[in-house]
Formats: sequence, structure tokens, C-alpha cells
Amino acid sequence: MTATEAGARVVGEDERLARIALNTIGEPGDPRLTRLVEAMGPVELHDRLLADVGLSGLRSETAARLEGLDPRRILDAATAIGVRFVVPGDLEWPEQLDDLLGVEPLNRLTGAPLGLWVAGPLDLAAVCRRSVAVVGSRSATSYGTDVAADIAVGLAAAGRSVISGAAFGIDQAAHRGALSADGKGSTVAVLACGVDRAYPTAHRDLLRHLKENGAVVSELPPGCAPTRVRFLSRNRLIAALSQGTVVVEAAVRSGALNTAGWAMRLNRPVMGVPGPVTSAPSEGVHELVRTGAATLVTRAAHVLELVSPMGSHLTQLAREEPSARDRLPPTDLRVLEAVPLVQPAGASGIARTAGLSVSDVVESLVRLRELGWVVGSAGRWRRSPDEPLG
Amino acid sequence: MTATEAGARVVGEDERLARIALNTIGEPGDPRLTRLVEAMGPVELHDRLLADVGLSGLRSETAARLEGLDPRRILDAATAIGVRFVVPGDLEWPEQLDDLLGVEPLNRLTGAPLGLWVAGPLDLAAVCRRSVAVVGSRSATSYGTDVAADIAVGLAAAGRSVISGAAFGIDQAAHRGALSADGKGSTVAVLACGVDRAYPTAHRDLLRHLKENGAVVSELPPGCAPTRVRFLSRNRLIAALSQGTVVVEAAVRSGALNTAGWAMRLNRPVMGVPGPVTSAPSEGVHELVRTGAATLVTRAAHVLELVSPMGSHLTQLAREEPSARDRLPPTDLRVLEAVPLVQPAGASGIARTAGLSVSDVVESLVRLRELGWVVGSAGRWRRSPDEPLG
Repeated sequence: MTATEAGARVVGEDERLARIALNTIGEPGDPRLTRLVEAMGPVELHDRLLADVGLSGLRSETAARLEGLDPRRILDAATAIGVRFVVPGDLEWPEQLDDLLGVEPLNRLTGAPLGLWVAGPLDLAAVCRRSVAVVGSRSATSYGTDVAADIAVGLAAAGRSVISGAAFGIDQAAHRGALSADGKGSTVAVLACGVDRAYPTAHRDLLRHLKENGAVVSELPPGCAPTRVRFLSRNRLIAALSQGTVVVEAAVRSGALNTAGWAMRLNRPVMGVPGPVTSAPSEGVHELVRTGAATLVTRAAHVLELVSPMGSHLTQLAREEPSARDRLPPTDLRVLEAVPLVQPAGASGIARTAGLSVSDVVESLVRLRELGWVVGSAGRWRRSPDEPLG
Repeated sequence: MTATEAGARVVGEDERLARIALNTIGEPGDPRLTRLVEAMGPVELHDRLLADVGLSGLRSETAARLEGLDPRRILDAATAIGVRFVVPGDLEWPEQLDDLLGVEPLNRLTGAPLGLWVAGPLDLAAVCRRSVAVVGSRSATSYGTDVAADIAVGLAAAGRSVISGAAFGIDQAAHRGALSADGKGSTVAVLACGVDRAYPTAHRDLLRHLKENGAVVSELPPGCAPTRVRFLSRNRLIAALSQGTVVVEAAVRSGALNTAGWAMRLNRPVMGVPGPVTSAPSEGVHELVRTGAATLVTRAAHVLELVSPMGSHLTQLAREEPSARDRLPPTDLRVLEAVPLVQPAGASGIARTAGLSVSDVVESLVRLRELGWVVGSAGRWRRSPDEPLG
């Protein structure tokens, strides 16, 4: 049973078609539509808008546009090119998207989506359940793309899928990193245009690969072009589909910071990878971390710690065992510190440096020589060239 | 009136000499001595230890060492080479050092100092009242030393003094940055050996310059050699003398992290400058920031914000004025987004992309053309190559 067949059992045909029609006439995320769908359901809203029960007797633009739409034809055309429309209630619907219903609309882009157009073999709900968004600048440095790819490799190796856009720079590096992870990586691209379009065109092969092996997702019907507002409204989906958002490089006014803002509003962890303070593409990330909006991460293990249930995936700090030196008695340690590395010194000089009596120092020196810490002859002492290990 | 004369008015000669004696016989920061001085005052403690009222009738090592000391001679010898001993109660005593009395002793290095040996023309209390510690790795990268110097320049320009060690790498860069700041910078080096010694010897000129223009400080009497424990106990003074500690580069087990730990215990701000995640000398700093022990800073303005009284020195975010584009009415913005950049499109195509009626779109396009946003001829429209600015 494919994901589409599974979904079809749950959500009625009329509801799916009504959502397609409503989704097609409005700009993605229009909170007025979202709220009306919440209030009366998509079928009733569609019928009422089509009947144009309102105002002045003139047909409204909306009614006119709805009448000109054939959602069945739109769906059939999409199906023919391997694209499905996933809606709330489908088994493939990622439930975490419904968190957008609880967020105060910021502007006309911020409602919950009415449905998602999806291409690719992965079950969207399953793949998003253990996923991390890795986003950043289009004009990334090679440092940024290297680190993004490394983190994606680590996430994929831990069984996490990677969600990003399909832009140059960090987006591309994140997908490639996940895909390179020994066949284990699953990756989701969320677009600001129809899933049948290749934008940027240089990423045609990448997007084809994702459609054959991962998932490509958009709120916009097939054929739609990307616009600036669509990139902004797309960002909320990247944040909402994932368990947390990692920003790798982002200048001060970057779209990636917009995605980070969505993750914050949704109470999902926001993580930032630092870079040189002299690098403009890291400035936005540093500002997120400095102001406490993001947690600093430097590798996949740090990300896993933050997106996993409390207490699992704790990063092991690089802590050494107490060394042989740490285990020395305090007086012996103090004497050892006072013994010169190269030029041998007498016990009285060492006693002055250590602030101890000569007799205490001589006792210590004998113990330290037995343990291999110091070498001494003719009453002059220096550190052993080979200090004890264990 | 020099700092020494001012101090001499307040603290009696006998107390200063008792503190010199006690400071000379013990390792700096021995909390047992500190606590006894707190309990009975330095003069009484000195006299009791010298009388050796205790135990078995045999003279104790301590009594024997105290008897062999002539603190007056030690002070005279120091004075002869331009070194003074500053003690609690002196006007030159930096009162923030007394915060060390409130910190639970960690080990034998953590008591409050009994006094400080100081060389250099600056009044230590005055210079430390508005000071920031800038510390980091000896094996710093050129990135690290550049950033440390930049931050020190910015601090000096804002009237802050810089406190550091005298090591290679970040310490040196911090001093040099502060000194280069147009004659305004004052800088304090805290040593793990006597202030008359040059360690490392390659920094002889730097230390001479600081002694002539800044301040060089140590808990250890002139002539003492540096040891590992002395570096560790020195670090608490760097943290305690300053209003906050900036760590620029520090590997995972670095002395600079020890200084940061002291600043934390003293409730002073700890700040970390990030670097590439691929750079080992930045790892310790990243760990401080990741775990919330330090606040990320990238420039002097961020540091000033954290070490200044609440609300002053707030960093201005790089926020642009709302652009001409942001001020467009929503419909016009939506239409503008749908107008192609290069290949002109007809109004009906633009209407489909924008999800608006053709008549609304044509009205918008005419307005946008008047404002210079789009160009159109023969019913085909594209973006203006020169978009309006203000």
C-alpha cells in the first residue's frame, strides 16, 4: 500500500478536492482561509465561497476564480507526473504542522497549510517524525558548506532525516551530506514553487534525485513560480516539519533567520553553528546565539542532544582521567612543580621555589625519583625527560 | 601623591610587613592562611606562628621559616627596584579582590590574596575598576590574535583597561591591542612569577613597557619562579581583578578556561569569541558558550554591553529602515513579486502567478510603473532594472 492509498482511506475525496481548490485560489498560508477552514471545514467553505452568499450582487473575484477551477483536473494532472496532495487527516500528514494553528498570525503568510503537494517515495509523516532542518545562506563559504555537509552526514548516520530548501550553498550541502551517508540518509526539500519546477535550474539533477529517493514538498500547486513572499511562507514549513532547526551560515538579514524565527515561535530548538567573527555569513548566526535565541552547536552530536528526548544522546565531554600527576600527594606535586625542566637545581633552590623546607623537599625528591618523575645526581635535580603516564 | 603614599596613610607598617612575611612563607592563595588572617589579623597571626605556640616542643617548619625572614628587607629590596606591596586597606587595593573571600575554596590555591606586588605607574584600584580580562590560548591562531587585539582596541577606546597574563598568543595580542589604542589604553599583566622576572623571556620588552606605562602584578615576591600551580592560582586574580572575562581561543583543557571558571564562581560575566568549528583552539570557547557558561561576543561593543551597568552600552542591531518595497500596499507587493525579472510577461500570466484577478493586476502594474518598480510595453511587463531606493 502506498502512502497515497493509505491516506485515501481516511480523508474523503470531496474534502481533498475542496482543499485543492481553496489552496489554489489563495496565496499559501493566508490565515483568513485557514481560520475559515478551521471553523466550517473545507467543503462547506468551498461551497459557500462558490455560491458567493454575500455583499453586493456582483460576483466576487473569489467566487469567479473558484468557478473557473477544476480541482479534479488539477489533481489528475499532478498524479500523472507523480505528485500527490497530502491533507490533514491523511496518515501521511505530518501532525507537527498543526502546531502552526497555535501560532499567532504575523502577517498574511502564517496560517497552517491547507495541504501539501508531495513528490517522492518517502512517507512524509514518517520521514518528518525524526528530522532536523539544516538551513543557511545561499552565498555560503566553503567552510559553511563543509560544516553543513558534516552535520548532515552525522544526522543521517543517527537515523535522522534532513529538511532544507533547494537553494545554493547550505541547502544543497545539507542534502548532499545526508545523501552521501552510506545510503542511510533521507532528505526532504521544501520548495517555494511547484514541486515539478526546478529552481534554481542548476539544481535540476539534485531535485530529480530527491524526487526519486527522498521527498520534495510544496504548498504551491505544480507549475507555480517562486516569489519572494513564497520563500518567506515556505520557511515556516521547514521549521514546522522538523524537530529543530540548525542555522549554519546566515548574514544579518537572511532567510535562514526567518526560518529560525519560525522554529522559535513553534518552541522547537534553534541551533547555530559559529564561524569566524570576521565572516559576514556567520554574523546572523552569532547574533542568534549571542541573544540566546539559538544554542551553539559545532557537530551533529550536539544537535542530536537537543532534538532528542531529555537525557538521551548526551554529548560526552572530552574529560581525561585524573592523570598520574593529579594523583601525587600535594607536597610531592608542589616539589615537582619547582624542579627545573632542563638545568638541574640543588635541593635548597628547589625548596625556596616550592616554599618548603629542605628536608621535606629531599624526602619528596627521593619519592619522585622512584616514581620516575625526576632524575638527580650529585645533589642536583631536574625533571625526567620521560614523565610517567598511567 | 603617589599610589604608595596614599596607601601608606591607611595601613600600618607592622601589618604590611606581617602580610609580606606570611605571603612569603606560603604558596599564594593557601586558604588556611587566608582564613587565619581573616580571623585574627595578619600581625597577630604572624606573632603567634613565630612564637610557635603549639604541639611538641620542636620548632615547626613554619616558625623556623618565619624567623629566618626579614620582611622589612624584602620590602626595601622591592622598593629599590620600583616594586610596591599593596594590601587590603590601601587606597590602591582593588576591592573586588575581596569577592574571593566569598568563594568556597576549591583546593589549596583559592584563598583571597594577602597582598599584591605591583610595578608600574598606574593606580591598581583605579585601573581595575573599569577593566576587562582578555585571555586565551598560548598557541593561538593568527585569527585569534587579530580578534583579541581588535577587542582590546575597542575596550581601550571605551576607556576600559585590559587585564591578561603575559604569555604568547592571546595575552600578548590583548596587551598590544590596548597599547595601540591611540594612547588611551591602560593594561595590566598578572604574572605567575615575581614582577621583576621576564617570563617568557621573549616578552622582556613587553613587560618593561607595561612596567613603565601600565601595571605588572603578582602575588609572588620578586625573584620567584613560575610553576604550574602558580599559573592556576594566578588565574583567579585575573578573573577577580576584572569586571568580566573574555576568552578568545582556548582548547578543551586550557588555562583560559580555568580563568573563565573563576569568573563564573565570582559571578562576573564570562564571554567567548567563537571561531571556526574546525579549529581546535576554539573548541573550549564553543563548549563554554554551548553549555551556557559564557555569552557569545564578536566585538568590543558586545563586551561593553555585558560589563556595563544594566541598560547602558546596548548594542544597536543592524536593523534597516523599512524599505520602499516594504512600504508598498500588500496587493502591489504581491503583483511585484509575480513580475518576472528578465523575460517580460503578460498581465494574465502575472495574475495567475499572483493569484489575483487580471483587472487588479493591471491597476497595480500601472501604479508600480509610475513608482519605477516595473517597466512595461505592448502589454508585457518586467521588473525595472533600477528599483527605487528610498
